[in-house]
Amino acid sequence: MPIPALESKAASPLNGKTYETAPPTLWAERFAQRTQRMGSSVIRELLKYTEKPDVISFAGGLPAPEVFPFAEVERASETVLREQGQKALQYSPTEGYLPLRELLVRHMARYGIKVTPANVLVTTGSQQGLDLIGRLFVNPGDRILTESPTYLGALQAWAAYQADYLPVPIDDEGLDVARLEAQLRGGPKFLYILPNFQNPAGVTLSLARRRRLVELANHYGAPIVEDDPYGQLRYEGEHIPPLVQIDAEYHRSAKGDREFTGDVLYLSTLSKTLAPGLRVAWVVAPESVTSRLVQMKQGADLHSSTFCQMVAYEVAKDGFLDRHVKTIRDVYGRRLQAMLDAFDRHFPEGVQWTRPQGGLFLWVTLPSGFDSADLLKEALGQQRVAFVPGSSFFPRGGGERTCRLNFSYMGEDMIDEGIRRLGTVIKRRLVRP
Amino acid sequence: MPIPALESKAASPLNGKTYETAPPTLWAERFAQRTQRMGSSVIRELLKYTEKPDVISFAGGLPAPEVFPFAEVERASETVLREQGQKALQYSPTEGYLPLRELLVRHMARYGIKVTPANVLVTTGSQQGLDLIGRLFVNPGDRILTESPTYLGALQAWAAYQADYLPVPIDDEGLDVARLEAQLRGGPKFLYILPNFQNPAGVTLSLARRRRLVELANHYGAPIVEDDPYGQLRYEGEHIPPLVQIDAEYHRSAKGDREFTGDVLYLSTLSKTLAPGLRVAWVVAPESVTSRLVQMKQGADLHSSTFCQMVAYEVAKDGFLDRHVKTIRDVYGRRLQAMLDAFDRHFPEGVQWTRPQGGLFLWVTLPSGFDSADLLKEALGQQRVAFVPGSSFFPRGGGERTCRLNFSYMGEDMIDEGIRRLGTVIKRRLVRP
Repeated sequence: MPIPALESKAASPLNGKTYETAPPTLWAERFAQRTQRMGSSVIRELLKYTEKPDVISFAGGLPAPEVFPFAEVERASETVLREQGQKALQYSPTEGYLPLRELLVRHMARYGIKVTPANVLVTTGSQQGLDLIGRLFVNPGDRILTESPTYLGALQAWAAYQADYLPVPIDDEGLDVARLEAQLRGGPKFLYILPNFQNPAGVTLSLARRRRLVELANHYGAPIVEDDPYGQLRYEGEHIPPLVQIDAEYHRSAKGDREFTGDVLYLSTLSKTLAPGLRVAWVVAPESVTSRLVQMKQGADLHSSTFCQMVAYEVAKDGFLDRHVKTIRDVYGRRLQAMLDAFDRHFPEGVQWTRPQGGLFLWVTLPSGFDSADLLKEALGQQRVAFVPGSSFFPRGGGERTCRLNFSYMGEDMIDEGIRRLGTVIKRRLVRP
Repeated sequence: MPIPALESKAASPLNGKTYETAPPTLWAERFAQRTQRMGSSVIRELLKYTEKPDVISFAGGLPAPEVFPFAEVERASETVLREQGQKALQYSPTEGYLPLRELLVRHMARYGIKVTPANVLVTTGSQQGLDLIGRLFVNPGDRILTESPTYLGALQAWAAYQADYLPVPIDDEGLDVARLEAQLRGGPKFLYILPNFQNPAGVTLSLARRRRLVELANHYGAPIVEDDPYGQLRYEGEHIPPLVQIDAEYHRSAKGDREFTGDVLYLSTLSKTLAPGLRVAWVVAPESVTSRLVQMKQGADLHSSTFCQMVAYEVAKDGFLDRHVKTIRDVYGRRLQAMLDAFDRHFPEGVQWTRPQGGLFLWVTLPSGFDSADLLKEALGQQRVAFVPGSSFFPRGGGERTCRLNFSYMGEDMIDEGIRRLGTVIKRRLVRP
């Protein structure tokens, strides 16, 4: 239906004033203060090139699509729609689909985390868990103690709440607990820790350090947010208990507490063990916190896709997850080894790297004088190979010589070829700095 | 793997201090200031009773599951997984699945909204669109001009950003534009308007008022957020152009502008026309705003479910949406009429109600002296019937005599029975106040 022309200016009741058309900056002038902190777009722009078909990219954090369980998801979708279609396509409770939460409780129990479904909130990816935690806890200027480097997505989530940071450096055994106390004295709202195969550096917090971390956090009365997206993706070495379990043991042994104490909020996800496209992850918290997180999520997106939650449950319910994780470990373990071998073959002396025992990423430190953002420009331009410059992962700057490389997405041949190309750029730079 | 007991206190390096176990309020003490505004939990508690099987509830806002397109979603899921499974289960761009965004552009063009895919951001339900707008624009204390009553979900989303409100009353023709200017002088960050079959009141903003609203908003340089979840669900009367279209016409006629001016952000959803369980909705904005909303969404949940977006596209792509909406209109139109008839039959004199031309809700005003929260208690206790007390929808108080009733979810017989029960409680109160 066409709209008749609007009233002429003369007929306007606005006392003869000329209308002012809103300027093109109308909205831009209204952006909230918090958006001014949203960080470097230079690297974001560069990383757009990584999607070109001739670029070998180690920049993303994508699972390998070859290991996605297509047949199982298809079967599950059919079952869910035929047997419970009215439920699957409808609105559903904010806290998540109960059978899925029960399944996650059983799943975590095998990893030493003993909680009930009332402690579990399903989120739209772990990213949403981080966002809801920021929304519930972070006032502008609040300080969060993090590893440095740490997960970029957490920094992005908490930028919206104008968080500040107390960074603690890491080494091959994860967060350097000897340097923790100084920052704990800064009064962090909470500690944000990725103990297993940390994104970005790939390092794992040792058992001794986990215990010390829990002791110190308890001593200073500072709670912990434990982000564990990769815990099951271990390719060598022994499983190390999560902080949430160590904290519970600590309370039992030191205080005789029997219940889930909830000093640790724990996040995990099905994105790496099943499929990220379903956006199914979860947060574990004491009930008093879960109920507030539910309120936050209600404001954020009402609930995560009912259909995806029910499909995920249907796929996972008969032990499939544990069987499937073995396949993933096998594939990714070989790719990690392929990348480590390629480093040995193609990188010049002076380049250092971490040797992760699991996860998706490793961390390369370039010789002194290098800047990894400059290197990315050259690597893309000259050799069509990409990675993420490490400085993005440092909450308060640093890391100019570091790079994050993903080893899960590319096949072994491409890994070798990509690292060869990257080695060529580094060597050229070494000769002509 | 069992963890050995932690070091004894004596062996602790913490200079002999006794460990302090974190109190159970550890997290609660850390809730951010913003959570203190999260509003009445009394009604939330009451509404939990509405899920009991013997309660006839008009409280929810659920689409009727009988009209969900099960077969189409099942076929689409199969097609998507077989033909593009690697894509469907993988991470995907934050802005949304491009073919879906293109389809939404074509879809909106038929309703007079002329934009490009670069103006469209797919969100996890419209609730997320509201949240992202709050995140991008609202600083603590910023004022948002709203209808009063307005959509509760918007108030919940913006509570996290500590918004304040400039409420404008509504009547049978929607927002009372004669009382708009006084509040526009209060300098709102934006106007939030639901022009079609408003939630909660069911009223529709007339064309004359839409034009006046756009004029005034332009005059005061105040942008508009237009929330249009129900626009297609019209059961009688003629389609009225959306504000985003009227604003564009206004700019063309008054200023000769040819481009999408973007004074209006427009939100819509597939939740009411396809299925809410997929959580697929979208925001339309000028590119400069879309790109910032994308950044906000990256921090909030990275992206909405790839699988759900692709399934929604596959279901909708060959004109199915338009055919299916006719079925929904037919079913809901009959239910609306059933509720209006039941009012005539069962409500005593002195009760008033709106006569919506579409949507899911209508609005009942009780005789003077009534309090709808008290009435809900009695209605649940005595007659097992539920609705939402209207005061929840008023950003700055009021509406104690009002009630929101949903007419889409229950069949016609249940509607009649539920209204009979509610009428009984009201009549009893009238006799013995």
